[in-house]
Amino acid sequence: MSAELVKEDYYDYQDLYVAVPTKISAEVILPCDPTADESLYHICIIVISYVAMLILVVVARRQKFVFSRKGVPALLSPVNFLDHTQHKALSVAVFGILFCRLVGLVLSPNPLPFTKETQNKEYWLILALFYYPALYYPLLACGTLHITVGYVLGSLLSWTHFGILIWHKVDCPKTPQIYKYHSLLGSLPEIACLAFLSFQYPLLLFKGFKGTENSNPFEDLKSSYYTDYVKNILKKRKPSNASASSSNPKLSERFTNALKSYIYTPKDVFRFPLKLVISLVVALVAVYQMALLLVIGVVPTLQIVRKGVNEDIAFLLAGFNIILSADRKEVVNIVTYYMWCIEVCYVSAVTLTCLVNLIMFMRSMVLHRSNLRGLYRGDIYNVYDRQRSIRPSRPALVCWMGYTSYQAAFICLGMVIQTLVFFICFLFAVFLIIIPILNGKNLALFHIIGRMWPFWLTLSLCVLIQHLTSRFFFIKKEAGTQDLTNRGFLFLLTYLLFPVNVLVGVLLGIWRLVITAFFNIVHLGRMDISLLNRNVEAFDTGYCCYAHYLKIEVSQSHPVMKAFCGLLLQSLSHGNGTGDAARNAEEGIQLVSQDKKQNKVPSAKQARGHWHLLYTLVNNPSLVGSRKHFQRQSSESFLNGTLKRSSKESSKKEGGTTAASKEREGPVSKD
Amino acid sequence: MSAELVKEDYYDYQDLYVAVPTKISAEVILPCDPTADESLYHICIIVISYVAMLILVVVARRQKFVFSRKGVPALLSPVNFLDHTQHKALSVAVFGILFCRLVGLVLSPNPLPFTKETQNKEYWLILALFYYPALYYPLLACGTLHITVGYVLGSLLSWTHFGILIWHKVDCPKTPQIYKYHSLLGSLPEIACLAFLSFQYPLLLFKGFKGTENSNPFEDLKSSYYTDYVKNILKKRKPSNASASSSNPKLSERFTNALKSYIYTPKDVFRFPLKLVISLVVALVAVYQMALLLVIGVVPTLQIVRKGVNEDIAFLLAGFNIILSADRKEVVNIVTYYMWCIEVCYVSAVTLTCLVNLIMFMRSMVLHRSNLRGLYRGDIYNVYDRQRSIRPSRPALVCWMGYTSYQAAFICLGMVIQTLVFFICFLFAVFLIIIPILNGKNLALFHIIGRMWPFWLTLSLCVLIQHLTSRFFFIKKEAGTQDLTNRGFLFLLTYLLFPVNVLVGVLLGIWRLVITAFFNIVHLGRMDISLLNRNVEAFDTGYCCYAHYLKIEVSQSHPVMKAFCGLLLQSLSHGNGTGDAARNAEEGIQLVSQDKKQNKVPSAKQARGHWHLLYTLVNNPSLVGSRKHFQRQSSESFLNGTLKRSSKESSKKEGGTTAASKEREGPVSKD
Repeated sequence: MSAELVKEDYYDYQDLYVAVPTKISAEVILPCDPTADESLYHICIIVISYVAMLILVVVARRQKFVFSRKGVPALLSPVNFLDHTQHKALSVAVFGILFCRLVGLVLSPNPLPFTKETQNKEYWLILALFYYPALYYPLLACGTLHITVGYVLGSLLSWTHFGILIWHKVDCPKTPQIYKYHSLLGSLPEIACLAFLSFQYPLLLFKGFKGTENSNPFEDLKSSYYTDYVKNILKKRKPSNASASSSNPKLSERFTNALKSYIYTPKDVFRFPLKLVISLVVALVAVYQMALLLVIGVVPTLQIVRKGVNEDIAFLLAGFNIILSADRKEVVNIVTYYMWCIEVCYVSAVTLTCLVNLIMFMRSMVLHRSNLRGLYRGDIYNVYDRQRSIRPSRPALVCWMGYTSYQAAFICLGMVIQTLVFFICFLFAVFLIIIPILNGKNLALFHIIGRMWPFWLTLSLCVLIQHLTSRFFFIKKEAGTQDLTNRGFLFLLTYLLFPVNVLVGVLLGIWRLVITAFFNIVHLGRMDISLLNRNVEAFDTGYCCYAHYLKIEVSQSHPVMKAFCGLLLQSLSHGNGTGDAARNAEEGIQLVSQDKKQNKVPSAKQARGHWHLLYTLVNNPSLVGSRKHFQRQSSESFLNGTLKRSSKESSKKEGGTTAASKEREGPVSKD
Repeated sequence: MSAELVKEDYYDYQDLYVAVPTKISAEVILPCDPTADESLYHICIIVISYVAMLILVVVARRQKFVFSRKGVPALLSPVNFLDHTQHKALSVAVFGILFCRLVGLVLSPNPLPFTKETQNKEYWLILALFYYPALYYPLLACGTLHITVGYVLGSLLSWTHFGILIWHKVDCPKTPQIYKYHSLLGSLPEIACLAFLSFQYPLLLFKGFKGTENSNPFEDLKSSYYTDYVKNILKKRKPSNASASSSNPKLSERFTNALKSYIYTPKDVFRFPLKLVISLVVALVAVYQMALLLVIGVVPTLQIVRKGVNEDIAFLLAGFNIILSADRKEVVNIVTYYMWCIEVCYVSAVTLTCLVNLIMFMRSMVLHRSNLRGLYRGDIYNVYDRQRSIRPSRPALVCWMGYTSYQAAFICLGMVIQTLVFFICFLFAVFLIIIPILNGKNLALFHIIGRMWPFWLTLSLCVLIQHLTSRFFFIKKEAGTQDLTNRGFLFLLTYLLFPVNVLVGVLLGIWRLVITAFFNIVHLGRMDISLLNRNVEAFDTGYCCYAHYLKIEVSQSHPVMKAFCGLLLQSLSHGNGTGDAARNAEEGIQLVSQDKKQNKVPSAKQARGHWHLLYTLVNNPSLVGSRKHFQRQSSESFLNGTLKRSSKESSKKEGGTTAASKEREGPVSKD
């Protein structure tokens, strides 16, 4: 059943301006019911999804003896946010879908598909906030167990979701809300994400059959990423003479450096944490959705108004004593032209906003990387500007949980404000500068500035005099230092130029106001920098959240710690518990000496020395607690503790755990 | 000749709203010519002033042999801005007068009193910017020579200025510009400053006769302030246990400390530099002038409009489809009441602005003191947050010259913005919250918020759940460190709460926007803090200027350096060149040992040790250049160099200068 298009008198100014009736015809789109009834579809798909989950649980239980420590607990935490190397694409796609749904449900008159009533929208909205994560949860969970059944179910689910969504959009391309194609355009990222999932699950299934899919229980910890990272740290770097030679770079160099800091170039061994990747993708989707909303919410209305301009507008304007021209047709032309200018300004503003946000993304990525690498190295002071303890705490954990969401929300809010401000700036520029220049009339602004030229000249001259006299008359260079001279004249000049400097100060004040406002508006969507003065950074919610987020990320997923845990696990699985500390140390040294290509077998002492080097190099504060226990005699219990933690992290089966670690199981791993 | 008051139809809405003629009667004040013609008076006073200056020059030349190195050079630099101990009141008063005049001439239609034509106002304005400093220059110069003739002439000049100003204001209390009493009220600070000068000069004359006035050539350098400062530094402090014991202060303590940091309490040995004192006084005058302008420019107009409200307003509102009441008299009452509310809001906004600025002054003073003391001690990193060289440079000197003016301009600009923003906030509060509550209708805002209560409840609950689970379920404390536990559930919760957190993020974003805007608007008038992020502080013109200002102030008027120079001069004047380095060192030690009350005579070695201690304690970077030359064999030439500089600073006669220092005289001291 496709939408009926009925031509009607849609806009009617008669209510607003009694004297000037302006009639504009516009499409009216009736609400459209797709062939596949939405509420029925949702009930079916949620039942199917959770049946699939049950099947997975049963299969996982049956395979319990093959892959231990999986099943229900693994299904209950499908995204390991603290994993640098996990297959990120699935979770990113699901978060993208979820965000699109969120935007849809906030704008839609009936947020939940089960009900048509719009009376208690707020209750349905709240329910929908929890319904959609639950709906898409199985899509995420099917990939966590790394078993064939999971991939098959995942493929089926994603195909169903994808197929029905496409069917709906083909059935009802136009919707009455906001703009006829808004719903269609808004669901494009959702379609893309679902298409990606529909492709990814079969791909994983295929890889699983071919055996190339890495279903190792320590996939995360055995990943070469961590060992590569450690190798990269240990590698001797050639001292870069070029950068070190000039401590005071030239202006052109500084400009190039500033430009470079806005361009993200992937570096050898560094991967973004999963949470940051999700945040960036969700933020990109947010930019798309907001830009769409900003364009679609305003431009069609402006166009309708522009098309509706007729000769009556001359009367209307005359009522306000505005007579643009004696000829009424010319008035219509002028007004249409002005309306078109406003439209152009608005679209330019939205475009600029998107561009600014994309540039800010790049800059953020550069900064995220440098901050993370800095904190991995222990440069706490450089990142935070003050000493902070890098360890999990309550506020840090709350900020970590909300980071992705807050980033998306800040982008949305920032884009609205930015578009508004840019639009106003463009309007000023167009109507006060460009149109007057093009038409050669209404040059009031230029006349004012032109009439003030003696004033500008005086100010410039006074500033110039102060700079020149300071340079050549009041400062003398002697014995390598600069000192004041001619103090009497300096004081005299200071006194005489006091009134002029007040006027210079007004200009400086305006500049300060403009630059501060502009900087803060442009950076509103970025959480990685504070918008406030350095002493009150704690009041900036965005920056505060980011600082806390970094704490958790660094303390919990430090690549060197992961590499260490991976090596320990590796040694245990090789020797099955018989490999003792000396062997572990050799495992460690293997990694280090690989780089040097030395063939002599290192002693245990050397090995320990190298591990100390690792610790010293990477001053990871979260390891401080563990380092206390890292003594020769208690190494066994420490290893077990580390194993337990890392096995929980990777949610994979474990080769052989000792009895001691099993005793200390938390409530999660009771399987 | 007093102003004629003619009642006339002043406000006439007929041009604006054809249908609603509203007639309001208002005073019309005719331009008033004072009995003492202003142009004549100005010509006379400027001639008299410069005749007085000539007399001073002649007297100074005649007394040349008595007080060497004075006269014309001293007259050409009447304010020694780099002096901590100079008689500050005279210069502060003259700067106050100058600022009042500046405000007057910017607002006045004919800036210069010599001309009545208003055609080329901009040229006269520029001329006036230089005329007024010249006009009040003799008032300042009369006090510099510290001679009786100077005080007599100063008294006469200030009495003349004061008398004529009072006469003018009595003659013409009302002026047609802006508001009838604006000119009178605006000149109150000027009257106060002139009255102060008229009282101060005779007082100085009287002191000069009694001999209590300190006319010592080294007045500045011999001042006990510098030696007291050094004594205070050298004093052993008892370790304050109370503050050091608790590194993590309680919330109440932190609140008290924050409150205390906004209250300026004078401390034992610290005086503000003259330039800062002038800046603060000028800023206070600026606050008064701006508040006056803000109140007087708007409130009388609002009152006239309010008085002019009659029953026709009901028709006017009906034209816009606004019907407040069926009864026309009630409409008038309602409109009058609303107008009164707007007036109250506006006056409250101006009052709040003044209060905010006064509090900011106090805070600035506290910060100025701590910054200056920090830099005297060499805590460059604490003040600037990065390494900077404390020495005079071109931009630093330009900023130093303009500091007072910029501060005043920033205050003026800040107050306009603050009043505007506070006014809008008050309007929102009154018309959307207070009036609806009082009247019990139009509670739209409350209805919206009330209808959203399930939404607020959900958000609060979700945030609470995240905090509680983080505290009790996801973080375990073990072996003195905190670590994550139950990771699976943490990831699950993070995923499920993603949509809700986006909405929480929108609220956080609004909070960020509001707090950033509010902070920057409140601190707009303050130059001692940056409004920008710590990485781009250089773009904040205000803070940049303050940072540069501090450099010059600290490098040129370090109290310890001054104390040292003072001691050297003292020893030379005692021994008249015969006192060699050993004696100087003894002079130095006198100061140090005074405190300890030890009677044994210190050796030259000990003395030198103490001086080294002084240098080490006070890490003054501006002395680095001089320290190179501070060796035993070249001490004589160094002493001369220092003497020359300090004698120029204090503009006083010098006991005995060597031939070498005379040869190196700059162009200033050719007398």
